Amino acid sequence: MIKFAFYLAPDGKLPQQVDLDQICNLLATGKGLLWVDTEDTTSEDAQFLTDAFNFHPLAVADCVSKNIHPPKIDNFDDYIFIIMHGINYHIESDVVETTELALFVGKNYVVTSHDFPMRSVASILARIQVDGRPMRRGADMLAHDIMDALVDNIMPTIDELDDKCTCIESEVLEYPKKGTLSSIMQLKRSILALNRVMSPQREIVNTIARGDYPVIGKKCQIYYRNIYDHLVRIETLTQGLRDLSDSVLATYLSSVSNRMNEVMKVLSVVAAIFLPLTLLAGIYGMNFANIPELQWRYGYFVVWGVMALVAFSLVAVFKKRKWL
Amino acid sequence: MIKFAFYLAPDGKLPQQVDLDQICNLLATGKGLLWVDTEDTTSEDAQFLTDAFNFHPLAVADCVSKNIHPPKIDNFDDYIFIIMHGINYHIESDVVETTELALFVGKNYVVTSHDFPMRSVASILARIQVDGRPMRRGADMLAHDIMDALVDNIMPTIDELDDKCTCIESEVLEYPKKGTLSSIMQLKRSILALNRVMSPQREIVNTIARGDYPVIGKKCQIYYRNIYDHLVRIETLTQGLRDLSDSVLATYLSSVSNRMNEVMKVLSVVAAIFLPLTLLAGIYGMNFANIPELQWRYGYFVVWGVMALVAFSLVAVFKKRKWL
Amino acid sequence: MIKFAFYLAPDGKLPQQVDLDQICNLLATGKGLLWVDTEDTTSEDAQFLTDAFNFHPLAVADCVSKNIHPPKIDNFDDYIFIIMHGINYHIESDVVETTELALFVGKNYVVTSHDFPMRSVASILARIQVDGRPMRRGADMLAHDIMDALVDNIMPTIDELDDKCTCIESEVLEYPKKGTLSSIMQLKRSILALNRVMSPQREIVNTIARGDYPVIGKKCQIYYRNIYDHLVRIETLTQGLRDLSDSVLATYLSSVSNRMNEVMKVLSVVAAIFLPLTLLAGIYGMNFANIPELQWRYGYFVVWGVMALVAFSLVAVFKKRKWL
Amino acid sequence: MIKFAFYLAPDGKLPQQVDLDQICNLLATGKGLLWVDTEDTTSEDAQFLTDAFNFHPLAVADCVSKNIHPPKIDNFDDYIFIIMHGINYHIESDVVETTELALFVGKNYVVTSHDFPMRSVASILARIQVDGRPMRRGADMLAHDIMDALVDNIMPTIDELDDKCTCIESEVLEYPKKGTLSSIMQLKRSILALNRVMSPQREIVNTIARGDYPVIGKKCQIYYRNIYDHLVRIETLTQGLRDLSDSVLATYLSSVSNRMNEVMKVLSVVAAIFLPLTLLAGIYGMNFANIPELQWRYGYFVVWGVMALVAFSLVAVFKKRKWL
Amino acid sequence: MIKFAFYLAPDGKLPQQVDLDQICNLLATGKGLLWVDTEDTTSEDAQFLTDAFNFHPLAVADCVSKNIHPPKIDNFDDYIFIIMHGINYHIESDVVETTELALFVGKNYVVTSHDFPMRSVASILARIQVDGRPMRRGADMLAHDIMDALVDNIMPTIDELDDKCTCIESEVLEYPKKGTLSSIMQLKRSILALNRVMSPQREIVNTIARGDYPVIGKKCQIYYRNIYDHLVRIETLTQGLRDLSDSVLATYLSSVSNRMNEVMKVLSVVAAIFLPLTLLAGIYGMNFANIPELQWRYGYFVVWGVMALVAFSLVAVFKKRKWL
Repeated sequence: MIKFAFYLAPDGKLPQQVDLDQICNLLATGKGLLWVDTEDTTSEDAQFLTDAFNFHPLAVADCVSKNIHPPKIDNFDDYIFIIMHGINYHIESDVVETTELALFVGKNYVVTSHDFPMRSVASILARIQVDGRPMRRGADMLAHDIMDALVDNIMPTIDELDDKCTCIESEVLEYPKKGTLSSIMQLKRSILALNRVMSPQREIVNTIARGDYPVIGKKCQIYYRNIYDHLVRIETLTQGLRDLSDSVLATYLSSVSNRMNEVMKVLSVVAAIFLPLTLLAGIYGMNFANIPELQWRYGYFVVWGVMALVAFSLVAVFKKRKWL
Repeated sequence: MIKFAFYLAPDGKLPQQVDLDQICNLLATGKGLLWVDTEDTTSEDAQFLTDAFNFHPLAVADCVSKNIHPPKIDNFDDYIFIIMHGINYHIESDVVETTELALFVGKNYVVTSHDFPMRSVASILARIQVDGRPMRRGADMLAHDIMDALVDNIMPTIDELDDKCTCIESEVLEYPKKGTLSSIMQLKRSILALNRVMSPQREIVNTIARGDYPVIGKKCQIYYRNIYDHLVRIETLTQGLRDLSDSVLATYLSSVSNRMNEVMKVLSVVAAIFLPLTLLAGIYGMNFANIPELQWRYGYFVVWGVMALVAFSLVAVFKKRKWL
Repeated sequence: MIKFAFYLAPDGKLPQQVDLDQICNLLATGKGLLWVDTEDTTSEDAQFLTDAFNFHPLAVADCVSKNIHPPKIDNFDDYIFIIMHGINYHIESDVVETTELALFVGKNYVVTSHDFPMRSVASILARIQVDGRPMRRGADMLAHDIMDALVDNIMPTIDELDDKCTCIESEVLEYPKKGTLSSIMQLKRSILALNRVMSPQREIVNTIARGDYPVIGKKCQIYYRNIYDHLVRIETLTQGLRDLSDSVLATYLSSVSNRMNEVMKVLSVVAAIFLPLTLLAGIYGMNFANIPELQWRYGYFVVWGVMALVAFSLVAVFKKRKWL
Repeated sequence: MIKFAFYLAPDGKLPQQVDLDQICNLLATGKGLLWVDTEDTTSEDAQFLTDAFNFHPLAVADCVSKNIHPPKIDNFDDYIFIIMHGINYHIESDVVETTELALFVGKNYVVTSHDFPMRSVASILARIQVDGRPMRRGADMLAHDIMDALVDNIMPTIDELDDKCTCIESEVLEYPKKGTLSSIMQLKRSILALNRVMSPQREIVNTIARGDYPVIGKKCQIYYRNIYDHLVRIETLTQGLRDLSDSVLATYLSSVSNRMNEVMKVLSVVAAIFLPLTLLAGIYGMNFANIPELQWRYGYFVVWGVMALVAFSLVAVFKKRKWL
Repeated sequence: MIKFAFYLAPDGKLPQQVDLDQICNLLATGKGLLWVDTEDTTSEDAQFLTDAFNFHPLAVADCVSKNIHPPKIDNFDDYIFIIMHGINYHIESDVVETTELALFVGKNYVVTSHDFPMRSVASILARIQVDGRPMRRGADMLAHDIMDALVDNIMPTIDELDDKCTCIESEVLEYPKKGTLSSIMQLKRSILALNRVMSPQREIVNTIARGDYPVIGKKCQIYYRNIYDHLVRIETLTQGLRDLSDSVLATYLSSVSNRMNEVMKVLSVVAAIFLPLTLLAGIYGMNFANIPELQWRYGYFVVWGVMALVAFSLVAVFKKRKWL
């Protein structure tokens, strides 16, 4: 479904919303700048795009298909076709969901296509409706602004993952609960998935910044270089997160084995103190006819004393060994 | 054994099945498009292929040999020789089996060779018999369609592996059985094997898409680029599976050590509660002549009370320590 | 805020501090060497830099922005824009903080920009005020001197991390405390972060040393090669630290399981010695009417003897097994 | 020691064995094909090779030296010098021993040198003596045949390692013995060593197949490409073996900790059942003057009943927890 | 301090020791071959080198500085400046110490500089004093001989590390002592450090062998290729050592957990045998008025029998389970 089509005439003040019928005429003039946005692209839209813009069927098919496509850039000389991935992070379920944005960038048009409403497209649209600025600098800069907004929206996700990570870390250091391990694992997987999505995008933006495509003007390349720097920064942060999550996992595993140590120490201390005393009590519970101590007047109290002595010295030994 | 040979005349409506004798003549004309398929290739077939198509003996030998060959592409200028691997995943035995498809792609012919019946070849054959479409766009597109079908058939396997993985994960979180570990290991190995088969294929398809081979027309390259994107997606999914299986393994190992913790806690609590009480009972079981408490009227009940007190306070201590 | 601006006239003895107004005139002459330093750059400073030096808005924006940017080098033909990272290591909190230095290097000027006071800039400034030497060899050598000072300041941090590492190592070997694990983890993360900052810088300095930028004179390249060697050395040391911290972690984990072993041995020895003796005492505590031993004159003492014998032989067995 | 020298005249039916004296003359004609094989090369042989073939002293020195040299290829324009490694796997000691084969390949001669008798050389010799086929297609094809035989001889070793691996795996799953761990470790090391030998060879054969050396004819390259495919296949198999051995090791380690779990469960169950019962017996063994239960007629039997009840309910609890 | 300076005249029989004053004259002639060696280079030596040979100040500064520099090669067209690292392994302290050798190689001179006496320099010097051979083949071959000697001296270190590794391995398999873990860790670190030093050297020698530097004659390159092969071999051996040390560490960790298993089994067996017997003794130690068995004539002996029976059957069960 084609959501909107804006056209900025070469001498225009503000971009005007245009009908589908006008698009072909405007394109034929080869002047001004046209931005067409389609959401949840149907095969009718696809047909229209193919007819009006003369796009390659395979590229249009990628827009229609609901499958996830890896980030990529295809050069068709007259235009380039870019697939970029944004991030939707659902913090409660810890799932990193990628949202796909397809862009066709020609000399005097940009066509965007996505399956769901996207914040980046909406924000650029809002700025256009205010004063038309993002459309004044040409198609390559308009595409840059949209991709920049897309990449900027990734940073909050990384911050949230970072918060979650430090939150789990403190949980692990205090008292790990039953679900802690699976949260750590889920977090690690989210971070790895994020990493896998980001790396190819960096390479794609790099090829644009390097000037591999004639559609992107020379003056515009340095701005794409800026997006590249953002993506490098995101990658560095993601790797930091990976280290953090690895260290949280190692801390968790090690704290499990530390607590086992604690438990075993308590068991050993209890056994080491009570078993000898029980033996002593057992000995004076024997029924031998001739056990001289049994007839002692204070025998019973002596035994109590001996028991206390043994217990205290064992406690002292364990204290010294730092088991208590 | 040559299974079928179809020929689409330049002005033909539908491809016609042809005899082996006709093949040489048709090839000599250099027009139309010929598709020859051999299954379980014998040395006689090999001889025929060498004679009729003038293929290199080594390439033909690869078709005859029942060994597994790594995916590869060889350029003989007049034709290219491709070996691609599909996947047969036997879910009950968790074994990923690769099926090998060899293709010779010339200007006006495609020769396919495989050891076992292949779904991808059968599906293209069916579409040809309906309306001949896959053969109308030239040899390079016919080869593309067959390889595309081969690659598409890999996705269900990945879905099945994914299902299996999440299924084992929930098993691990609930109650790991004896065979769980070896299923995890088997799964990991399947995923690694899958990964090893897919990576070289991606590179091979990339060289085709890049236009390294004169046999593949320029307009067709973008379609191979599409297969490349599929293989990239498959690789990303496989890496996700690898992360998942790693995390399942870590969860398993950690749950083993958690359960050990549980067991040790129970042991420690039991010992810490009963050893002191047994000592108390032992003390009043001693046979000293002079134990004043033994003569108390309610001594026995006092001991019961003391025992209950000790037991309850210990239980309280362990509850506080979250051991119970 | 522009902190200072020094100008060395072509025939000058010592660099002179100059006003902002003079800068444009001096630049117009294209002679001498100008060094402008801004700290905590505001948007006014940015405007000034853009006007006076004709810098690209994106590069100036990087100076104003308080975000961290990855190390990079951008070539604008007339000048290059470099972002380098220094290190501030807070030993008490184990946090490696990167400090960012941005440099514009033109034919006859160097502009430095940073958010906080930097030791490297201050030290070069001090040397200039003494005899002007660092400014006598041209803009490329002045930039080299500043970057060299920045890189030299990293070595003490590595030494401190090394000290910390060996200090934790000896703590682990003697008696690991509760916080030991988290110090190791924090240290590992610091080292990884340091590594991540250093690697891209090495590559950037390499491109300068290779002579990719016309602004850097041919004679100066070998000096940048020297900085490159420093960064290679830093990377080697960082990898050594990584190995060290890995081995400290492995030692820690292994010492935890060794101490568990110790605890279990004590428990086993105690149980193995006292349980049999307690059984013996229990047997002669039975109330059977007919237990001949009970009537023996020295029965009680024989039991003591047997108990001592059993205990000693068990101790001997455990000594031989090296459990004691 | 020069083992044999065969010469196939340009018009010859069968290769003839020739004397050392004839070699120089034959070489001078520049026609036909000469194959000289030396085993356990002495410095006299080296002198002869240097004189007759004009080989570089360093290459000849590599043949004489008994040290192991890494696989390599050196281009001397007139001839190439190749060192390839075969495998001798001693299954009983699990040691992978590399056997070194040095080849000089010129336009009309092949010189092979090895320290021990080699199956690959012997098998080609046998085929030559039958009908001279391997020598009919030129020096490059003769060298190919020898190297192909060398590489083919590696496959059985991989099969044996695979058998050993699955054999250890089943041992681990059933009952791991004392030596199991060290067999796994030895196996892993063998596989890694094999991998290290194979990787560089693949690269070397690739350079030959790519046509980097003028000595290797264009028609022959595709045959070297075939050896390359073999080596790729071997590398894939070796990586599969590595995964397998890793998973066997993980299974072993995990089964050790599983058995520990079993042991601990038995201990806990025993303690949890018998400690309470012993306390009960201890209580009624106390000597208080006033214990009413002791006078009950069926007190003793009631205690038996209570004990049985306690024991059964504990067993039921443990059954439910799946500890038994 | 300049240790010696030898000069071989173009028509000379033996190299002559020359004064510093003569060096400049000899260099001016541009004939013959001069070798100057400095040890513990002072700034005066540096001044002399700069004056006499016209070396770059940075290269000379590297010779004076006592810091460790990474291996590198700098091309100054007239001469190349190489830093190579040798190895001094102190077996008792397990520390791999690198020794640095700096070489200036010009058309008719070699200047070596090192901080400590080096065996490689001494051995070449000795050979020169005998018959002057290493100086007869030009500056590039002299430099080759020195570097070759340096690399040859690394092999014994690897052998020693190998011995140490297998020695620790057998210690681990027999009875690991307290210090075993830290020896393994130290060894691993030594091997990693060795690896880090060797890898860049290999690359440096490769660039020489490839003919990147005009100072190195074409005929000499194959000899540097020989050093390269040595370094490849050293790297292969080092990786083998790494695998070995990894496997020793894994064996150690696993043997710790195996011994824990042993300890736990003993504990469980002891508890499982003695707790039931103690209960039995406790039961017949109860003071119920009516316990029929107590009045049986052979009751006591029957209890002994029952106890023996229980003990034996438990031992049999544990034997079957292979716990004993």
